[in-house]
Amino acid sequence: MTVQNIYDLIHSVAPFDTQWEGDNSGLLIGSPSQEISSILFALDVTEPVIDEAVAVGAELIITHHPLMFSPIRSLTDVSCEGRLIRRLIRENISLIAAHTNLDQASGGINDTLAVLCGLTDITGEGFFRSGILPEEMTARSFADLLAKNLETTVRLMAPEDRMIRRVGLCSGGGSDYWIQAAENKCDAFVSGEIRHHHALAMADAGIAAFECGHFATEEPGLSALAEALQNAVDHVKCNVRVYVSAVPAYSYPRTP
Amino acid sequence: MTVQNIYDLIHSVAPFDTQWEGDNSGLLIGSPSQEISSILFALDVTEPVIDEAVAVGAELIITHHPLMFSPIRSLTDVSCEGRLIRRLIRENISLIAAHTNLDQASGGINDTLAVLCGLTDITGEGFFRSGILPEEMTARSFADLLAKNLETTVRLMAPEDRMIRRVGLCSGGGSDYWIQAAENKCDAFVSGEIRHHHALAMADAGIAAFECGHFATEEPGLSALAEALQNAVDHVKCNVRVYVSAVPAYSYPRTP
Amino acid sequence: MTVQNIYDLIHSVAPFDTQWEGDNSGLLIGSPSQEISSILFALDVTEPVIDEAVAVGAELIITHHPLMFSPIRSLTDVSCEGRLIRRLIRENISLIAAHTNLDQASGGINDTLAVLCGLTDITGEGFFRSGILPEEMTARSFADLLAKNLETTVRLMAPEDRMIRRVGLCSGGGSDYWIQAAENKCDAFVSGEIRHHHALAMADAGIAAFECGHFATEEPGLSALAEALQNAVDHVKCNVRVYVSAVPAYSYPRTP
Amino acid sequence: MTVQNIYDLIHSVAPFDTQWEGDNSGLLIGSPSQEISSILFALDVTEPVIDEAVAVGAELIITHHPLMFSPIRSLTDVSCEGRLIRRLIRENISLIAAHTNLDQASGGINDTLAVLCGLTDITGEGFFRSGILPEEMTARSFADLLAKNLETTVRLMAPEDRMIRRVGLCSGGGSDYWIQAAENKCDAFVSGEIRHHHALAMADAGIAAFECGHFATEEPGLSALAEALQNAVDHVKCNVRVYVSAVPAYSYPRTP
Amino acid sequence: MTVQNIYDLIHSVAPFDTQWEGDNSGLLIGSPSQEISSILFALDVTEPVIDEAVAVGAELIITHHPLMFSPIRSLTDVSCEGRLIRRLIRENISLIAAHTNLDQASGGINDTLAVLCGLTDITGEGFFRSGILPEEMTARSFADLLAKNLETTVRLMAPEDRMIRRVGLCSGGGSDYWIQAAENKCDAFVSGEIRHHHALAMADAGIAAFECGHFATEEPGLSALAEALQNAVDHVKCNVRVYVSAVPAYSYPRTP
Amino acid sequence: MTVQNIYDLIHSVAPFDTQWEGDNSGLLIGSPSQEISSILFALDVTEPVIDEAVAVGAELIITHHPLMFSPIRSLTDVSCEGRLIRRLIRENISLIAAHTNLDQASGGINDTLAVLCGLTDITGEGFFRSGILPEEMTARSFADLLAKNLETTVRLMAPEDRMIRRVGLCSGGGSDYWIQAAENKCDAFVSGEIRHHHALAMADAGIAAFECGHFATEEPGLSALAEALQNAVDHVKCNVRVYVSAVPAYSYPRTP
Repeated sequence: MTVQNIYDLIHSVAPFDTQWEGDNSGLLIGSPSQEISSILFALDVTEPVIDEAVAVGAELIITHHPLMFSPIRSLTDVSCEGRLIRRLIRENISLIAAHTNLDQASGGINDTLAVLCGLTDITGEGFFRSGILPEEMTARSFADLLAKNLETTVRLMAPEDRMIRRVGLCSGGGSDYWIQAAENKCDAFVSGEIRHHHALAMADAGIAAFECGHFATEEPGLSALAEALQNAVDHVKCNVRVYVSAVPAYSYPRTP
Repeated sequence: MTVQNIYDLIHSVAPFDTQWEGDNSGLLIGSPSQEISSILFALDVTEPVIDEAVAVGAELIITHHPLMFSPIRSLTDVSCEGRLIRRLIRENISLIAAHTNLDQASGGINDTLAVLCGLTDITGEGFFRSGILPEEMTARSFADLLAKNLETTVRLMAPEDRMIRRVGLCSGGGSDYWIQAAENKCDAFVSGEIRHHHALAMADAGIAAFECGHFATEEPGLSALAEALQNAVDHVKCNVRVYVSAVPAYSYPRTP
Repeated sequence: MTVQNIYDLIHSVAPFDTQWEGDNSGLLIGSPSQEISSILFALDVTEPVIDEAVAVGAELIITHHPLMFSPIRSLTDVSCEGRLIRRLIRENISLIAAHTNLDQASGGINDTLAVLCGLTDITGEGFFRSGILPEEMTARSFADLLAKNLETTVRLMAPEDRMIRRVGLCSGGGSDYWIQAAENKCDAFVSGEIRHHHALAMADAGIAAFECGHFATEEPGLSALAEALQNAVDHVKCNVRVYVSAVPAYSYPRTP
Repeated sequence: MTVQNIYDLIHSVAPFDTQWEGDNSGLLIGSPSQEISSILFALDVTEPVIDEAVAVGAELIITHHPLMFSPIRSLTDVSCEGRLIRRLIRENISLIAAHTNLDQASGGINDTLAVLCGLTDITGEGFFRSGILPEEMTARSFADLLAKNLETTVRLMAPEDRMIRRVGLCSGGGSDYWIQAAENKCDAFVSGEIRHHHALAMADAGIAAFECGHFATEEPGLSALAEALQNAVDHVKCNVRVYVSAVPAYSYPRTP
Repeated sequence: MTVQNIYDLIHSVAPFDTQWEGDNSGLLIGSPSQEISSILFALDVTEPVIDEAVAVGAELIITHHPLMFSPIRSLTDVSCEGRLIRRLIRENISLIAAHTNLDQASGGINDTLAVLCGLTDITGEGFFRSGILPEEMTARSFADLLAKNLETTVRLMAPEDRMIRRVGLCSGGGSDYWIQAAENKCDAFVSGEIRHHHALAMADAGIAAFECGHFATEEPGLSALAEALQNAVDHVKCNVRVYVSAVPAYSYPRTP
Repeated sequence: MTVQNIYDLIHSVAPFDTQWEGDNSGLLIGSPSQEISSILFALDVTEPVIDEAVAVGAELIITHHPLMFSPIRSLTDVSCEGRLIRRLIRENISLIAAHTNLDQASGGINDTLAVLCGLTDITGEGFFRSGILPEEMTARSFADLLAKNLETTVRLMAPEDRMIRRVGLCSGGGSDYWIQAAENKCDAFVSGEIRHHHALAMADAGIAAFECGHFATEEPGLSALAEALQNAVDHVKCNVRVYVSAVPAYSYPRTP
């Protein structure tokens, strides 16, 4: 199985041409014809993630966030991005990023987040999803549920006794999608990063805001893609092993 | 004492002409010649804050964040900002915003935050401050200290056992100032909102990130200005009372 | 009857979505749900016009020219526009502007002007109208006719003995529409303000230009809308009185 | 005497490098080395003005307004400007424009206008001048004085009984300079074209506006330059005759 | 026959509305109604070309490259372009340019060049053409063939022994069209000017580049238009003589 | 000796901060701390040049033209630039580009070209140089001299019998610097690529143009830098060998 085959499988569930203008999803580093025996999924390319890839023998890393999001003009050891790219090339590891195409995909980042929020009757399109809690609960109880399901610290930006039933959400740094929560008459809005002026606007609109961290709202959706990909390759009886990074977020050691 | 007198007192400690290009600090609503007997300080203008101002008889509200940050072309009851501005005018309450000028001022938002982080040997200019903890501590311990001093939820974006001595900071949504923390060889960086790609860059640079919430990192500096202003008016024996809003952040009731 | 009802009536004769890009016609100040018993029409909001509105008990002013044409970032007594807006809000007077939508409307500003120019067989669309004088006359005679019908000073920008039969026009500051007068083989062009280089171009094209003043070419069309609105509310037996401002143009007293 | 010599004489009283960015003052058509025996001054190049130049044998026309103000890409008989330029070249007539440099010059367009307004103690720089009437008079009386001195129709944009003593002015289409009249505490402002929103702003500021026509406010200053140039060439005993166009403004005959 | 008639004939074979945005093809100087007895074709307007036009009594010059490609604001003897335009107007010679419309036309500049390259099975649209050599030859031989057929110096930018069969081309300064040669699997690419980085890209893609000079690749196509026009006017029995400039390229004498 | 040491040596003769805005000279690929035993100089990075570098054991390539001149967002085998960069990184070869800084440097690209043109009394700054031939010669003779000295095909864009004494020049694609040749009263102008409209302008100004090819005008200056660098490292007794590429320009084999 080649890098191109894997690219095509991802494209079939999260088409790369649905990515946002300005995004950099796609095959970023490597060769479409490279043969693949193992793949590592991770939210971002970091030094520990490349260590993991080397350890498991992965010839391909698939991340959510792209490298070279800002176009580059040099590739030296002086910058972090330069070091990461140079190491990938020397280790002969290809890199595919599935970013805003995966955010929007059916069964993608936001759909996975909606399930982890405990919602039913999930609807929505683009980057927004909404649904209903099985039964009404306080903002405090919902914050505790989120902390447990997403394994994260939750910042509750509303009174603790506010009652919650209908919930809107957008993973990562998507707090400007609160406006769709208002249009859908949601009681609450969940996101990874919630900016202060959005929190104020939600307060005015009577919506309780729950900030759950960028990593915690996106990592589960990437793991779901890994599982789907493992099933797909197994189905065609290809002997490709799919791993998910076990490195905690933001855990770089200081460069020795 | 008039609105203009109060404006001049604030200008003497946080000159309005030091504000960022594009900011909207200054006298936003009201009349320079209005006589003032009471003032209310709050991070933002909200309905509960105007309720408070009316309750204490304040003719002037002083906030950190400006209204009309985006220029406006109408003033109707249809928008939140329209309702707030119309109510201020009808209640005859003037509004002064001290935003990026107060962030940078000596004794302003960031200096106050540095003290609450427990730092000594505080240096820095513009929006950045750094200093030293009396003794080295783990990231977990420093996060607990911040949670207690700032009365907030802290999101720790680094391994818990990382050791911390030198700390950099920028209040509010200032996580791009982490680069100054790197230049100052800080072990940690504190801010209100920390964006994911900044957290990754800090991890690569060996800096532990502590996200403490926009409100929690800025409110103390505004209270400090209130206290300084009370002292200034007392000193000239003016009978002006200065209040600080006691409304919790993001606590709007749903509009009935 | 509410502000929204009045807005809808105007919209039915001069749809607000036909306004020019960059214009600011619509409900600018107030509340859609406010109950209305009296309305004052005026070309512009000025202090004497607000005096009139207060005197007749109007809860709504309808003007041709919008306030906040340039977006604003403060509302203080220091600027003329700030004083006007603050007074409207405190007097609880709503403001609707019908500007470029009314210029173009059937029966609107330009159609009314065409009738006052003594034209028949009136045609045209957008901001331009043309028609024929019942009989040919000299430029001098037509200038006198305009001065009488529009109650204004006319600047004749052509030889006095030029003969006129077909006339084109555009109210207000619309002298660049002379080109449509040329395309329609007009002998004359009427507008409120005529710029020098347009007058030269008309001279070269053999078109006599008549500059009649901005106010004089637009006020009659606004009065016509007032009359139409009075008829409309009478027809549905609503007890709303419609007034037209009697304040002369440019008559502000010096602020005491 | 050559075209270049004349250019240099004008440059010495109205330096061409003081012209506004975007203006097109200077030698526009012809040859610096052409020998000159007669010169015709006119506000604009028009067909009747070229007729006059041919009739008096002028090899050079000097105007206030430039040709090719908008850059051109063709020179055909299809456009008015094309016909004028082609005829100048075929008649071997050079063209110099002295526009915004002459507006500002000492003794230039605006200084000449100030004298014709009957002012004393004339001050100002750039495009603005102000001065004092020998004695206070009503707006009506001052309008009559202007109509007589400038041989024009005056549009009075203020109450007729307003009293006038200090007067500001800017020739041509310069009504945005009213703000300098306000800063100089003028009672009145004179210009060629006065835009409606400037007239409203002046009314609010207690300034009476007098619109006197573009041609009438600028032609006297150009005649003054003609006289000065005649004196200069006489002084060096050059036998060059200087004429001023006697064609009325906007008097083009229809092209036969 | 008038200038307009000639314009229409050219338009029928190379429609002016197919010209590139920013081009300046069309009637640039003169009068549509001018009667024409002789026409001179030349790649560019230069002093020797105007000499030729005068010598043969041509009232119309037709060039490939337009004058006033950059819009102009003056017409004096100080600039080369000013001198050329002024002389055309004084000699009463009209000027039509057929530039990017003729490049693309069927039978136009690029089709003519393809024939002179010895190609068969010519296809292509827009500015690109490709075809096949009757038999494979070395790059050296093809360069010699081009030098002879186009009467020019050829810069060969590839190894001399490279074998050539399929050839792509774009006249003048069109070396960025090499990419179409690659898409059409050409072995070689011919143009007037070939930029270094395009030559490098062609080397990487295995395409041999032949730079033949701007004049040499475009002049033949203009001569072809002259011949077609002579046939067209002969066909309608108009007595109009069509000449082609015999002035060598870049042969201006130094202005005396 | 490290890459940084070599960078510093080049900087001392052709300072990198003199490069043009938008250029990409500097250390583009690799590590400042890499130890260097051999260096290869070449005008451009191409596959054959990397082959040469590998063959001679060069850890550093120094080129005139930068890679990543247009910023990039991916590094795959699909593009030529991607393949070149990936191969450099895998071969552990660093890359320094000295482009517009070397063009301008004393003893750099243009100074070297001036000597090869046979000039004396060489002056000039920036990208332009001029000088005098020992004795006057015809354009034909000078073209032959250039063809011999630069080992290139010369396109002579002027009459063959034009006499030449003073010569201006700018290497590569610098034909817009002909204007400095005119200001310096040169009889001739030499460049790598000469655009048609520049050749026309030179013809009008009486300047003979000689187009010598991009590679031929720049390669000698790069070789001169190689020699200077070899001397510099020898002088400090470092055992670093400096090679100059012997690959002909535009000689890529078709990728197998």
